[in-house]
Amino acid sequence: MGIINLDHLSANPLLPEVQEAMVKAIKSNYGNPSSQHKIGDPASEALDGARESVARLINCVAPKEVVFTSGGTESVNHAIKGAAFANTKKGNQIVTSNIEHNAVLRSLRRLKMMDFKVTSVPVDQHGRVNPSDVEGAITDKTILVSIMHSNNEIGTLQPIKEIAQITRDKGVLFHTDAVDSVGVVPVDVQELEVDLLSFASNPFYGPTGVGGLYIRRGTKIWPILDGGVQENNKRAGTENLIGIIGMGVAAELALKHMDSRISHYKRLKDKLIKELPNFITEYYVNGHPELALPNLVSVSIKYIEGESIVLLLDEEDIAVSTRSACAAGALQASHVLLSIGRDFADAQGTLVVTFGIDNREEDVERFLVVLKDAVKTLRDISPLYPKAAQA
Amino acid sequence: MGIINLDHLSANPLLPEVQEAMVKAIKSNYGNPSSQHKIGDPASEALDGARESVARLINCVAPKEVVFTSGGTESVNHAIKGAAFANTKKGNQIVTSNIEHNAVLRSLRRLKMMDFKVTSVPVDQHGRVNPSDVEGAITDKTILVSIMHSNNEIGTLQPIKEIAQITRDKGVLFHTDAVDSVGVVPVDVQELEVDLLSFASNPFYGPTGVGGLYIRRGTKIWPILDGGVQENNKRAGTENLIGIIGMGVAAELALKHMDSRISHYKRLKDKLIKELPNFITEYYVNGHPELALPNLVSVSIKYIEGESIVLLLDEEDIAVSTRSACAAGALQASHVLLSIGRDFADAQGTLVVTFGIDNREEDVERFLVVLKDAVKTLRDISPLYPKAAQA
Repeated sequence: MGIINLDHLSANPLLPEVQEAMVKAIKSNYGNPSSQHKIGDPASEALDGARESVARLINCVAPKEVVFTSGGTESVNHAIKGAAFANTKKGNQIVTSNIEHNAVLRSLRRLKMMDFKVTSVPVDQHGRVNPSDVEGAITDKTILVSIMHSNNEIGTLQPIKEIAQITRDKGVLFHTDAVDSVGVVPVDVQELEVDLLSFASNPFYGPTGVGGLYIRRGTKIWPILDGGVQENNKRAGTENLIGIIGMGVAAELALKHMDSRISHYKRLKDKLIKELPNFITEYYVNGHPELALPNLVSVSIKYIEGESIVLLLDEEDIAVSTRSACAAGALQASHVLLSIGRDFADAQGTLVVTFGIDNREEDVERFLVVLKDAVKTLRDISPLYPKAAQA
Repeated sequence: MGIINLDHLSANPLLPEVQEAMVKAIKSNYGNPSSQHKIGDPASEALDGARESVARLINCVAPKEVVFTSGGTESVNHAIKGAAFANTKKGNQIVTSNIEHNAVLRSLRRLKMMDFKVTSVPVDQHGRVNPSDVEGAITDKTILVSIMHSNNEIGTLQPIKEIAQITRDKGVLFHTDAVDSVGVVPVDVQELEVDLLSFASNPFYGPTGVGGLYIRRGTKIWPILDGGVQENNKRAGTENLIGIIGMGVAAELALKHMDSRISHYKRLKDKLIKELPNFITEYYVNGHPELALPNLVSVSIKYIEGESIVLLLDEEDIAVSTRSACAAGALQASHVLLSIGRDFADAQGTLVVTFGIDNREEDVERFLVVLKDAVKTLRDISPLYPKAAQA
């Protein structure tokens, strides 16, 4: 389409190998992996193969620790609500952070309507949780801690391993929403020692509408979808086999190419951040300068509205975002940006750039040139932009 | 593969037109329908188009009454748990039947663990619910009635419209699990006057892992997947767009070809039932003789085990089932068959044949010949088979 996509968080294109596997699956007309006769055998084998590939990506002890879901949102809902409902005899308190994704936030808001209590720990100016805050928030009624692996708006990575040490010591379940990390940066469930880890296929170039939930063996959790005995009785419903096959291939490629992809992303991210001061003034780069996703840059630009910038860039065939697509319909200022200390106006003036393997350095250059003009245009008509600065 | 598929309930093959649309969607690399820039526009249009096609199939007042889900199981869980949780201020009792699908049964069993009460009404020897039993079971604490549209093991259709009159008079929400009906027989939500109706794409030759929930405007229900604002804020999570596009095309074709498909199924079903006495003795045909799915035949054969028959037929390249694939891993006798009065042994000796548009009369003929031999083989080694009959 000739559009420069700098919003890969919204949607990554499917890799050619993923496309090929999905097209083959469609044309193969697989049966039902649970059927009692041989029509289901190739389906069952394909499902097992995909599960092994995905389990390898996050280094599970056994493939059956991976439960396939309809995406990151279902995984998160399953982890949080499933753990909460299964452990009401122990308590009703859940500990989380101030900067979680809507899937976590709204799952917890739902649980609050059902007499669960939620304690949110703050983050520092880079968006990092302090593990000792988590420790301090845990009581004898705590049944679950849920802290994201990486933030989808500012990219900051959390000290998951350190938090897991605390939750294990305290005997509390720990879930991490790793939707924007798995397949992008190394995620090893054995090293992290989490009990539950949510992820999705699209962040590593698999199809949308398919994801996974890592459930450590022995974790006490209810399904949220009850019915058939699929997924080792942990998630009912006939499988989205075509999507799962695509996810399996994407997982293999993500593992194989992770280092080179990270280098590629970092080169683009570094270039953007380094050159930005030559094009615009009065802005903040959000998120931790080191401990962050390599493919995400969040910039709060003063005296402009992010939505307006997105529109002006869209007219110039450059796709960026103000925040995650999941929140695009909601007009409030980002809770993430407010939590790291941005004021309401600056939060509204934020752009999120997410790189993909298809981006080149020229895309960054073109973005910077167009951004400069767009910022000027908007500031010229902004009543908030100080006159002195215009001179 | 040269296999005669008489187990379409497990998995229908994708129609060529559905395959084509899905392959095109894969190659188009659609963006995210919720994104803020034009990369998402074709995705958003495709999503709207599929929703219109699906809404037309069940005659919604407006397309937005259709919520896309990850399949029939999610739709059922959403309807039942979502309605239950949203209406706890009114009461905690739910009315259902004895012969529901596992997705309904186990969703209700889950709710019973959370202090909801479930009242199950019986069915007659054909598997029909008596609407006055439903009426009698409703109390001032009743918040939901859930009765399936058609039964997945014996095919019996329920008096949904009559039950809906009762629930509307009483001001109680009514959900029907129509997973095996929608796209197979006419289902019109305006005529039925239900509040919630679950369905899936594969029964009408769309992909697995995608389904829909009809939610009548104004129905008080919670999402079960909380997060982003997708699906009019009723079901969070980035959409399985490729699957949804396939479902849309399948819905169009199902509406267009419904009459001819039904005639085709009926011809095969009538032939099978009419010729069966020429091949085997001592069996029951289960389900209502008239008010039933046209594509399903359930036969309980005395003195044999259904699982063994399935294996013998499988060796002869004929795929049939003893019951739904969702329950294949569970070894109990079918609750449906016990509910219509079969004893444990006869319930275990049951075969379910489900026809597809690819079946021909020769498939029925071959099935009957092979079945005859298989039944003889198994009865010869059965200690239960009366000696007199062997003479």
